[in-house]
Amino acid sequence: MLNAVDQALVGDLTGGPSPKQRRALAKIITLLESTRLDHRKRADDVLNTLLPKTGKSFRLGISGIPGVGKSTLIETLGLYLIEKGHRVAVLAIDPSSSLSGGSILGDKTRMERLSVLENAFIRPSPSSGTLGGVAEKTREALLVAEAAGFDVVIVETVGVGQSEITVAGMTDMFVLLQLPNAGDDLQAIKKGVMEIADLIVINKVDIDPDAAMRAQLFITSSLRLLGFQGNPDHASHPAEHWHPIVMRLSALQGNGVPELWEKIQQFEALQKANGEFDARRKKQSGSWMWDRIDAGLKNAFANNVAVQELLPSLSAAVNQGTIAPSVAARRLLEAMGHEFF
Amino acid sequence: MLNAVDQALVGDLTGGPSPKQRRALAKIITLLESTRLDHRKRADDVLNTLLPKTGKSFRLGISGIPGVGKSTLIETLGLYLIEKGHRVAVLAIDPSSSLSGGSILGDKTRMERLSVLENAFIRPSPSSGTLGGVAEKTREALLVAEAAGFDVVIVETVGVGQSEITVAGMTDMFVLLQLPNAGDDLQAIKKGVMEIADLIVINKVDIDPDAAMRAQLFITSSLRLLGFQGNPDHASHPAEHWHPIVMRLSALQGNGVPELWEKIQQFEALQKANGEFDARRKKQSGSWMWDRIDAGLKNAFANNVAVQELLPSLSAAVNQGTIAPSVAARRLLEAMGHEFF
Repeated sequence: MLNAVDQALVGDLTGGPSPKQRRALAKIITLLESTRLDHRKRADDVLNTLLPKTGKSFRLGISGIPGVGKSTLIETLGLYLIEKGHRVAVLAIDPSSSLSGGSILGDKTRMERLSVLENAFIRPSPSSGTLGGVAEKTREALLVAEAAGFDVVIVETVGVGQSEITVAGMTDMFVLLQLPNAGDDLQAIKKGVMEIADLIVINKVDIDPDAAMRAQLFITSSLRLLGFQGNPDHASHPAEHWHPIVMRLSALQGNGVPELWEKIQQFEALQKANGEFDARRKKQSGSWMWDRIDAGLKNAFANNVAVQELLPSLSAAVNQGTIAPSVAARRLLEAMGHEFF
Repeated sequence: MLNAVDQALVGDLTGGPSPKQRRALAKIITLLESTRLDHRKRADDVLNTLLPKTGKSFRLGISGIPGVGKSTLIETLGLYLIEKGHRVAVLAIDPSSSLSGGSILGDKTRMERLSVLENAFIRPSPSSGTLGGVAEKTREALLVAEAAGFDVVIVETVGVGQSEITVAGMTDMFVLLQLPNAGDDLQAIKKGVMEIADLIVINKVDIDPDAAMRAQLFITSSLRLLGFQGNPDHASHPAEHWHPIVMRLSALQGNGVPELWEKIQQFEALQKANGEFDARRKKQSGSWMWDRIDAGLKNAFANNVAVQELLPSLSAAVNQGTIAPSVAARRLLEAMGHEFF
């Protein structure tokens, strides 16, 4: 049951492109991000109302370390797509934003040309909470942007910690931006990000074409050595599955951006043809539900009065080695209630 | 409060080396591994009684893919250590053991020479449960082996999934065994195992000395490129912290095993001198407690009657896209009780 305010917001959101629509989108995302219980209940109702209108965009994840040129590429790609008739929403996940006040998309001077267009919508990272909490808000915002008719939703993240895995887990395709140097390659392999990338783009080819070529060769051979031959379910039908591709471009000069979009479209077509597209989305929905259940359980533990009373002394005892950690854990769970035993 | 049986077991365990001691150790570990509630309570009491006698061993983690030569190395090292007057316990974590019936240490013909010695104790992997559950039993078994006076406890694992991270998280030093080939190197980097290794040992140098040398050079330069300069807390005192070392040996021929032990002792001395040894153990105890709390919370969720009633229909709705995953998660948590909201 929507209240009158939310009813009006949903109407504006789903009423086609207009300044009112962009305002409604921003307001609904703000409602989703609120930690107030009444806001949360309203947001759930809004989400349920919008759900039938979601799911129709292509969800593109883009990651890379600071300085790799993410915003330059996203702006160039976004302008190119809008010219082709698409509507592009850009969301961000910045796990450091709660500390820094937001480094991704928080800077008003970024994506200046894209942000003024009616068919673009740019939203900075939610700025509070854990990575899991930030990710949940972004996942919900993505659904709302879809309900508003944005048909390409880009989710951007910086290459720190687990955020790439999180973004790959909520998008249809995950693109990793790399600088042309070997340390960057190994870092991406180490962090398991190379493994989940559907496409690897070596940016700044204009600065050092030879290094970019070497990086492309190294990454290509590494992917082969690591056995990334695409989805193993389709290993018996090589033509039906995607081999991660490594390409070079210059986001600054715009070279290679049409080719990038072509690769993205090839990927989308192949994934839809072989059933991977739907399978990936279903898997992501399930993981999302379980992630939130885990977070909720941890929250319940942290907020439990009996736990709060016992935790300091038991933690200290574990730290001093006077109780086995497993025994301390069982005592805390018992304190929550017998069904936790 | 120990019952009479457990009192006798504890007496045998802590009464010095004897066949009775090895039997008591095996029986207590079996008690720890039991899933029966009354056994679990007895095991907790035994653990608490033994706790003051634990913590005095050097805990050595050894990992590597199947075929790398782990058991050959562990037997050679174990025999060498017992000859030097040590008492060596070997435990294992094999996350696949619940499926396969145990591939590590399950084969009676493995470590034949070591297993017959009174100063050796070899225990196969617990064979049921999740990796977390298996790991908890091994952590507890490690404490019991320490209480029995084993002063070197080796925890072995195969290089699949998360088990290396788990073993590194319960030992004082983590040694990664590698085969001399580049695919193996990249796999270890990819899985984040290279990152947590304190020492990397390239085995089977007898088979292809040139390949072993190339692997050593590649891994050494990768570690530098990845920025593994030891603990960053000590970066300003390079002489006080450990740089991961890459060495070559032949476990089969026994070449390099005394040098390996020497490196292990250097590591131990340095870690104890700079405070890292204690810091690592304290951190591990805390993580262990929180791991078990997480597992207990998930268990409580899975066993909750209201959750069991709602889960099938809500999972199906998430899968069909008729409810947002976050909304489904909140409904399930609400069903557990209002304090979960």
